[in-house]
Amino acid sequence: MQAPSPHIQPTACLIIIGNEVLSGRTQDKNLSWIAKQLNDTGVKLTESRIIPDIEQVIINTVNTCRKSFTYVFTTGGIGPTHDDITSACIAKAFGVPIERNRQAAAILEKHYTKEMLNEARLKMAEIPVGARLIPNPVSAAPGFCLENVYVMAGVPSIMQAMFGFVIPELKGGAKTLSRTLSAYITEGTIAEKLTQIQNQSPEVEIGSYPFIRNQRLGTSLVSRSTNEKALEATFNLIRNMLLEITPEVTEEDLAA
Amino acid sequence: MQAPSPHIQPTACLIIIGNEVLSGRTQDKNLSWIAKQLNDTGVKLTESRIIPDIEQVIINTVNTCRKSFTYVFTTGGIGPTHDDITSACIAKAFGVPIERNRQAAAILEKHYTKEMLNEARLKMAEIPVGARLIPNPVSAAPGFCLENVYVMAGVPSIMQAMFGFVIPELKGGAKTLSRTLSAYITEGTIAEKLTQIQNQSPEVEIGSYPFIRNQRLGTSLVSRSTNEKALEATFNLIRNMLLEITPEVTEEDLAA
Repeated sequence: MQAPSPHIQPTACLIIIGNEVLSGRTQDKNLSWIAKQLNDTGVKLTESRIIPDIEQVIINTVNTCRKSFTYVFTTGGIGPTHDDITSACIAKAFGVPIERNRQAAAILEKHYTKEMLNEARLKMAEIPVGARLIPNPVSAAPGFCLENVYVMAGVPSIMQAMFGFVIPELKGGAKTLSRTLSAYITEGTIAEKLTQIQNQSPEVEIGSYPFIRNQRLGTSLVSRSTNEKALEATFNLIRNMLLEITPEVTEEDLAA
Repeated sequence: MQAPSPHIQPTACLIIIGNEVLSGRTQDKNLSWIAKQLNDTGVKLTESRIIPDIEQVIINTVNTCRKSFTYVFTTGGIGPTHDDITSACIAKAFGVPIERNRQAAAILEKHYTKEMLNEARLKMAEIPVGARLIPNPVSAAPGFCLENVYVMAGVPSIMQAMFGFVIPELKGGAKTLSRTLSAYITEGTIAEKLTQIQNQSPEVEIGSYPFIRNQRLGTSLVSRSTNEKALEATFNLIRNMLLEITPEVTEEDLAA
């Protein structure tokens, strides 16, 4: 459920492109990193889609998502090999031609020796017409942005470097604040009281997450809100509710 | 890109339901585990969507996906707390009522003492009419299946126990086989030759994945096919191509 918020936040969708994630070979680590960055900027990651390296799927997904969300980020598929088809698909999704971008080619010419800069590597300078480049301080080949769609590499270190240039461009709303309490109490024990607290806290979204730690069952309760006062009030209601059951209630700072 | 395959495989979509994944708090680990299990069964995970605990989003996503894929799996949102709304949403997606399932209630009555079995825990026996239960040997509260949609817990240990009961029900096609070669060669160096090999190998899907290991750049080349002979032929072409550049070519068995 989503609590109504007085502060409107822009939304974002992350499209993770890559057969290697869907086959289970590669564990995606970009989503949680991007989610936290967006949150600090006041943008809410509201959906993510993981899709294969299939042209029509990429085109359809990008076109659906760019109409539904304030921002769309893609990761993966912008390298030099035959399975890197993201840039060409983005051009098709927007109905614009793809061209050898002069600025991107100049970046690659500076980065690679003449011998190394073969046709495959130059493919990484093929960018949809009208796109703005996103610098890549790690391995040179740039990402790009077209309207509200930001196209980035899939390798986490490269994506993170690119994202540093994207962040200042985003127009964020209110930042989501969060506080987390954990206790060795199972969800079912507190569910009814928690529902009451949620009903009293329309501006706060309360999430309940069971865990097993040191062979003991427990629950983490995460309160999230763009309203600091409302968050504090809900946090105190939850803490008091937990303290009525056990003295062992801890606040965690790992929440997001 | 997807190589044409002579063996048709059923498709699957995994819907991961949970604000905690989209906020970056929880790193999903279910996708890669499910992907590998499905692959061993001859079912191809072809898409995944990560969505928030919002009723209309869950309903729309389930209804879109159950028409587009052979199988749909959901994880998350079937616990006892206010933010566990998956079961109610699935009922609405199918246009059927939700009821206190007798069999599920009996399971909970056996598992919990009378004192513990409060209304919140009994909510976990609220199952859409017409659904079949999926046993939960870890914590009792069952998942369920309605037509081609399998609804499971989000906690990995529970999800995995449930999935053991789902697997025998799935009608798999040919199993995707894979072999991986790695070398300290960058993608751009081999991209052109790799494209030639891909063009010669219509039944094999070749994926190229850069890595950094021991401060050296390298590439892993994963060949995937349902045709063992075609896979072997492509694998040998790639190995010979790599050996022309470096003697240091290793086969990895971690591929999926």
